[in-house]
Amino acid sequence: MNLLAICRVLGLALEVEAAFMTPALVIALVRSEWTSVAGFSAVMALLLLVGEILRHLRLRRSEFYAREGFVTVGLSWLLLSLFGALPMYISRSVPSYVDCFFETVSGFTTTGASVIPAVEDLPMSILYWRSFTNWLGGMGVLVFVLAVSSVAGNTGDTLHLLRAESPGVKVGKLVPRMRRSTAILYLIYLGLSVAMFLLLVFDMPVFDALTVVFATGGTGGFSIRNAGMAVYSDYSQTVMTVFMLLFSVNFTVYYLLLVRRFRSALHNEELWTFAGITVLSIAAITVNILPQFDSLRQAIHHASFTVASIISTTGFAISDFDLWPWFSKTLLVILMFIGACAGSTGGGVKVVRVVLSVKIVKRGFRRALHPQEVRSIHMDGEVVEDETADSVSVFMLIYLMLFVGMLFLLALEGLDFTTTFSGLAACLNNIGPALAKAGPTLNYNCFSPFGKLVLSFAMLFGRLELYPMLILFTPSAWRK
Amino acid sequence: MNLLAICRVLGLALEVEAAFMTPALVIALVRSEWTSVAGFSAVMALLLLVGEILRHLRLRRSEFYAREGFVTVGLSWLLLSLFGALPMYISRSVPSYVDCFFETVSGFTTTGASVIPAVEDLPMSILYWRSFTNWLGGMGVLVFVLAVSSVAGNTGDTLHLLRAESPGVKVGKLVPRMRRSTAILYLIYLGLSVAMFLLLVFDMPVFDALTVVFATGGTGGFSIRNAGMAVYSDYSQTVMTVFMLLFSVNFTVYYLLLVRRFRSALHNEELWTFAGITVLSIAAITVNILPQFDSLRQAIHHASFTVASIISTTGFAISDFDLWPWFSKTLLVILMFIGACAGSTGGGVKVVRVVLSVKIVKRGFRRALHPQEVRSIHMDGEVVEDETADSVSVFMLIYLMLFVGMLFLLALEGLDFTTTFSGLAACLNNIGPALAKAGPTLNYNCFSPFGKLVLSFAMLFGRLELYPMLILFTPSAWRK
Repeated sequence: MNLLAICRVLGLALEVEAAFMTPALVIALVRSEWTSVAGFSAVMALLLLVGEILRHLRLRRSEFYAREGFVTVGLSWLLLSLFGALPMYISRSVPSYVDCFFETVSGFTTTGASVIPAVEDLPMSILYWRSFTNWLGGMGVLVFVLAVSSVAGNTGDTLHLLRAESPGVKVGKLVPRMRRSTAILYLIYLGLSVAMFLLLVFDMPVFDALTVVFATGGTGGFSIRNAGMAVYSDYSQTVMTVFMLLFSVNFTVYYLLLVRRFRSALHNEELWTFAGITVLSIAAITVNILPQFDSLRQAIHHASFTVASIISTTGFAISDFDLWPWFSKTLLVILMFIGACAGSTGGGVKVVRVVLSVKIVKRGFRRALHPQEVRSIHMDGEVVEDETADSVSVFMLIYLMLFVGMLFLLALEGLDFTTTFSGLAACLNNIGPALAKAGPTLNYNCFSPFGKLVLSFAMLFGRLELYPMLILFTPSAWRK
Repeated sequence: MNLLAICRVLGLALEVEAAFMTPALVIALVRSEWTSVAGFSAVMALLLLVGEILRHLRLRRSEFYAREGFVTVGLSWLLLSLFGALPMYISRSVPSYVDCFFETVSGFTTTGASVIPAVEDLPMSILYWRSFTNWLGGMGVLVFVLAVSSVAGNTGDTLHLLRAESPGVKVGKLVPRMRRSTAILYLIYLGLSVAMFLLLVFDMPVFDALTVVFATGGTGGFSIRNAGMAVYSDYSQTVMTVFMLLFSVNFTVYYLLLVRRFRSALHNEELWTFAGITVLSIAAITVNILPQFDSLRQAIHHASFTVASIISTTGFAISDFDLWPWFSKTLLVILMFIGACAGSTGGGVKVVRVVLSVKIVKRGFRRALHPQEVRSIHMDGEVVEDETADSVSVFMLIYLMLFVGMLFLLALEGLDFTTTFSGLAACLNNIGPALAKAGPTLNYNCFSPFGKLVLSFAMLFGRLELYPMLILFTPSAWRK
C-alpha cells in the first residue's frame, strides 16, 4: 500500500477544505455570528495542521494502483465529513455530533437528507457551508484537488484516483482522464451554475439564489427555508426543474457540444433513455395527481418539478408528495433507484447501468435459448467489452445486497416498512426526502443515532459507487 | 419450432390432469356434491378431448431444443391452470373466473395465496382438488408425465423439458437428468409425504391430514380451515415446522443419503447456508416477538413455525405475523426473496443463487482491485464454470427487473406500498400471505381483477424460474 501518496492526497484535501471554509468564516465575521467564527476558525486551523502533518509524514513510496485509489477516496470523504461536521457542532448550531455528521455527509454526498427541524434558525455562515457542501460534493473534492494540483505525481496515479471518485461506466466516448479534462468539467459545472444564478437572482434574495444554485448544481437538495422550495415563485421553480435535469446529464455531452461534435454528443443511448423515462414519468404522474390540483397546468408543474427532483436525485420539494396517490409514490421510489446519467452530479444506479442491464439480460435470455450462439452487446454503436458488462452485473448485485443488508440493519429501528425502505432508498441513491415518516415535510429524526449512522454510510456508499467504501470495510483487501 | 413434440407433451399433460381429477370426482359423488360432479366430469371430458386432439395433430417433426422445452413448460402450466380452474367455476364455488384462475395458479405454483374469504364454505371435492394442486405443482406436472411415459421420445428432449421445469443451478453433484432419477425423486417426495401423513393422522381428521400434507409437501400452503393452521395442536404444528424445512432441502441430498453417500450429501454449502439463515432468523425473531407471547417456549414455537413457513415458501400461518414488530416483518420479507434450496419444492430466488451471488460479488470486487488477477469461483469444493456464474447474474438481474416492472403495474391498483411490495414478493416467490392488506388473516381480494392477473403471472414466473414464462411474452424468441 502506497501510504505516502495516500497521506499526501488526504492532507491536501483537508487543506482545500479549510480554504473552502473561508467564505463561511467571512460571513460569520460580517454577521457577527461569534460562535460560528469560533467554530470555523478552530476547524480551519485544525484542518491546516492535520493536513500539513499528513503531507509531511516520512513514508515509503510504492506503486499506486486501483486499490490505493479506492482507499484514498474512501478515507478522504470520511475525513472531509468528520471535519466538515465540526463547525456546526462547535458553534452549537446542532447539539448532537452524530446529527452534524449525518447532515455533513448528506451535504457532501449531495443527498440533502436533513435532521434539522427548522433550518431558518441556523446562523447564515452555517447555512452557507451546509449548502456549499452540496455543490462541492457534486463534482467531487478530489477531482478538484487533482484539477488544481499535481499532488498525485504521475498521470497513472491521477487516473486511479479519478476512476475511484467518479467511476461511471467506461463505454467508449470521451472519459475524464487527465488533469486538463478534469479542469474542463469543473469549468462546465461552474458555467452552468453561474447561468442558473443569473436566472434566479432577479426573482429571490441573492443568498437564496446562491444556495439554491449550490443545491441544484450538486443535485444535493439542501434548502435554507423551512418550507423548502415551495416559498419561491413558479418561475424560479421552473428554472430549477430545467437545471435539475441539465445537471443530471453526462457532462461529456456538454463538452462534446462545446467542441461542436454534435453528432457524437447526441448519439447517446443513455441520454435518450433518461429523457424518455423523465417524460413518461411526468405524464403518468400528472394524470395520477390531476384530481388534487386546480388546473392541468399546476399538475404538470408539480409533476415535472418532482420527477426532475427525484430522478436527478436532488430531492427538492414544492409539494408534499407523500400525500399523492400510491401509484405516484411507488413510481417515485422506482425512479430513485434509476437515478441520473453517469458522469453527472446526480446519484442512483445511473441510467447507463440500467440500459446495460437490460442488454445483458437480453443476451443472457438469448444464450439460454441458443447456447451455441455468440453475441456481443452494443452501446452507442460500439461493442461493449465483456469485462464492462460483467462489472455492471457485479455492481448491480452489490447494490442489491448492500440494500438488503442495510434494510436489515435499519429494520432494527422498528419503523414501518414504507419509511424504512424509502428512507434507505432515498439515502443510498442520494435523493434526500423519502415517504411516510421521512417524507418531504418531515426529516430523518425518526431514526435513532444508530439508524442515522447506517444511513450516513448508505449515502457514502451510493455517492462513491460502492467500491471506495466497500474497501474500508474489507481490511483484508488493503492490508496485504 | 417442433410443434409435434410440443403438442404431444401438452396433450398428455392435459390427460394426466384429467386422471388426477378422478379422486375429486369420486369425493363429489360420495358426498353428493352435484354441482362439483357436473364441474369435474365436464372438465375431465374436455381435458381428454383436447388432449387427444393435441396428441394426434398431424405436424411436422423437427429438432427439440432448450427453446422448445421452455415453450412447452410455459404453455403447459398456463393450460393446466386455465383448465384446472374450471371445476371451481362451473360448480359456482367461486363466482369469478379470474378468481378461479388466480386460485388455481396459486395452487399449482405452490404459492397458496387465496382470494376465497371462507374456504370452509367450499364443497369437499373442490377443497380436495385445490389442495392437491399444491402437491402436484410442488414436484412439477411435466416431471411426473416424463417419469411415467416416454412421450418426449429421446433422452435429449426429456433433458430439455426437465431443465425447463425444474431448472435450479447446475453445480456438479447429481442432477435429475433422466426418467429414472425423475422417478426416484417422485418416490422420495411420496415417501416424505406418507411419513408426514402418518405423523399427523392421529392428531386430526384424515381429510385435514391429507390436505395439510398436500400443502406442506408442495410448500404450497393452502388450508381447508378458515383459521388456517392455528386450529391444529402444537404437536401438529411442530410436525409441520419440521416437514416444511425438510421439503425445502434439495431432494438430491435425500437421494445421496439413500445410496449411503453421506459425505457427498452433507458436503453441501447451500444446505448449511440454508440451515444457518433459518436458525439465525428464528433466534432474531424470537427475541423480537418475545414481549407479545406468554412464554419463551411459545415465542420460539411461533418464530420457528413462521420462519420455516416463509423461507420454505409454504405460507402457513398460526399467528397474525402482520401484528409483529416491523423488524420481524421486514426480516420475513427478506426471507421471502431468499427462499428454499434449489431442487426442492420451495420457491424464491433459492439459497444456491444467493450463495453464488455473494461469491460472484467477492470475485468482482477482487477484480476491481487487482485487474490482472484471474480467480475462479468454487462451490462444494468444485470449480463453478463462468457460464454458470453468468447465468446466475443474469437470473438475478431478470428477477430484479421483473419485480420492478410488476411493482409498477401493481402500483396502478393504488394500494399502499407495504401491501403492494409484500404482496408481489409473496406471489413472485410463491409464499402466499404477505403483509398489511394481504396479511395472513386477510386475502388477495384487495386487488382488482387486473391486479390478480398480474399476480397470477408473477406466481408462474417465480415457480418456473422466469424463462418458460418469459419466452411466452417474447414471440420473436419462439417464432423463427
